[in-house]
Amino acid sequence: MRLFDFGIELDINLTKGNKTLKRTKAKNTKQIGEQTVIFPNEPKIFSSHSIVSQKEKDGPFAGYFKDVLKDTKYQEKTFEKAETKMFVYALHNAIENAGITSKDIDVLFSGDLLAQIISSSYCARLFDIPYMGIYGACSTMAEGLIFSAMLTDGGFAEIAACVTGSHYATAERQYRGPLELGAQKQRYSQHTVTAAAAAIVGLVKEGIKITKATIGKVEDYGIPDPANMGAAMAPSAMSTLMQFFIDTDTKPDDYDLIATGDLGKLGSDLLRQLMDEKGYHLSQNYMDCGASIYGHDQHTSEGGSGCGCGASVLDAYILNKMNKGEYKKVIFAATGALLSTIVTQQGESMPSVTHLVLLEK
Amino acid sequence: MRLFDFGIELDINLTKGNKTLKRTKAKNTKQIGEQTVIFPNEPKIFSSHSIVSQKEKDGPFAGYFKDVLKDTKYQEKTFEKAETKMFVYALHNAIENAGITSKDIDVLFSGDLLAQIISSSYCARLFDIPYMGIYGACSTMAEGLIFSAMLTDGGFAEIAACVTGSHYATAERQYRGPLELGAQKQRYSQHTVTAAAAAIVGLVKEGIKITKATIGKVEDYGIPDPANMGAAMAPSAMSTLMQFFIDTDTKPDDYDLIATGDLGKLGSDLLRQLMDEKGYHLSQNYMDCGASIYGHDQHTSEGGSGCGCGASVLDAYILNKMNKGEYKKVIFAATGALLSTIVTQQGESMPSVTHLVLLEK
Repeated sequence: MRLFDFGIELDINLTKGNKTLKRTKAKNTKQIGEQTVIFPNEPKIFSSHSIVSQKEKDGPFAGYFKDVLKDTKYQEKTFEKAETKMFVYALHNAIENAGITSKDIDVLFSGDLLAQIISSSYCARLFDIPYMGIYGACSTMAEGLIFSAMLTDGGFAEIAACVTGSHYATAERQYRGPLELGAQKQRYSQHTVTAAAAAIVGLVKEGIKITKATIGKVEDYGIPDPANMGAAMAPSAMSTLMQFFIDTDTKPDDYDLIATGDLGKLGSDLLRQLMDEKGYHLSQNYMDCGASIYGHDQHTSEGGSGCGCGASVLDAYILNKMNKGEYKKVIFAATGALLSTIVTQQGESMPSVTHLVLLEK
Repeated sequence: MRLFDFGIELDINLTKGNKTLKRTKAKNTKQIGEQTVIFPNEPKIFSSHSIVSQKEKDGPFAGYFKDVLKDTKYQEKTFEKAETKMFVYALHNAIENAGITSKDIDVLFSGDLLAQIISSSYCARLFDIPYMGIYGACSTMAEGLIFSAMLTDGGFAEIAACVTGSHYATAERQYRGPLELGAQKQRYSQHTVTAAAAAIVGLVKEGIKITKATIGKVEDYGIPDPANMGAAMAPSAMSTLMQFFIDTDTKPDDYDLIATGDLGKLGSDLLRQLMDEKGYHLSQNYMDCGASIYGHDQHTSEGGSGCGCGASVLDAYILNKMNKGEYKKVIFAATGALLSTIVTQQGESMPSVTHLVLLEK
């Protein structure tokens, strides 16, 4: 697929590799298959916390979400400041729940949907922790967990933290229009979840193990409509899940739960179909956080989206169930639509990426 | 410093840590001091490539920059598409120079200045490489090199790639105003460098070793003016450099070159002053890529800035000199101002972060 006219000087099909590279291969490779890695030192999520708004609390996960924001401006002057404050709140509580201080944390990973991931940076400046900004759109929590697991497992950090989130009002202003405009939504659109969640990962005795991870490739099936994120993200979810099953020689039924991030109803139907075509059948153990977070009566079209969607469901529902022993092996595959208003206005289609972690009790 | 009014329920001075955590500390810790890590498996930058525009070619590094873009739209319809194409060109050539194919690369790190790092995502969709988006503003190349070194050293990847860049016209439109507006610049502003650069890192026999790295903390001295990026970034450059010298028990004169990313003339003067106050004197072996990339007659006020600034100088000048043996030990400390138009308009000051890698021949 030639997505730009790159002219004759640039042949992007790289086939000239001469393979004469003298490698000093690490003795302790942690790669399995094409795209998956293992974590032999067993890094664990040993604390997490989330905060959601009343809208999410009114949905099917009502019994799981604990901290609820009644005022979506969180006593701040702007929605953006409220979003940052939600990040701070989630991270602060995750650190406190862990029984540590911020000084014990060697690295913080954070990302969000706003331009220049500003909620993340402004949260990070309040904590005395080395900070690396990341961007995976709504796949950010999985990306953060992968980095956290890699850095702790690899000996580069003892304890890592990740925090992400999203806010309906800031995302609308960033990607579509301000709420005051009252623009009508497309039938296949999704509603950005107002939530933030943080997780603390370390080489400790108790917690939910991160045992494997698959870093996704960018997929683009040419969806031109920025409202149709489910259709744009389904191919990357398929690509990453497929590769994980191939690399680990397993099948969907080997897991207690397979949770995608925020494909929504349409997107998760498309994922089932794409997986069926490849011979991998997603059955009752499959759920999509976006398709599940709101009830049918909540007027959210195809469901929820945003960094906070998968992240808050992971904290409040998935990790909760795992800690209780109800789930033992869970695939968390967070999906991200890599769009921006500029490129959409320039007629580009929407690529996506999906990162996956395997969690085990 | 209380940067938001977080109300009484949120005490961000976390002092309640009870330290009862049962740790299973990795035997092979790679942490030294507070914030620095080492890479015992010696990951190396074994290929790199950059492309700049005529403006950069007209500056003091004229003899070092090889590939020059005569048309800043790169035969594309928009500057944004041109920026993506520059990323693709730099990465393509770095891969080709390495004598490998994109299939040999296990992970690609990329980030840029545009909202939702769109140049990076749109570059990544053309390469069949697992992709992790990162954001460190103008510190992105150092962040990418740190991740590349960590993942290869840790056994999670054999070969990693990173690419970043910036474009004067896209950055002006993103952060200030479109060029057509013809707005007058502040005297202390910087000129975004039009350049992209890529580096390939792996466990191979030949190349420039990445031996140590320091992940920066977010610093904010309260600079409210988004044009004054040098002043905003100098404190984080000081923080990271200081911590590196403390962690490694070395001093500035122990290195052949200390290069900061894009502090500009004012910012690098401030850095010298801040370091002097701490008793670490930056002498003749210190340079700032932003302060050095343009000549005095090129009307760029305090100098260059942008992800492409430090990245292209690293490729064309620093790595070139190291490969020739002229420099043996180089500190590359890329600085990033974590601003966005939204928070600036909401009256926020500008935090910054600086990531550091130590390169050795």
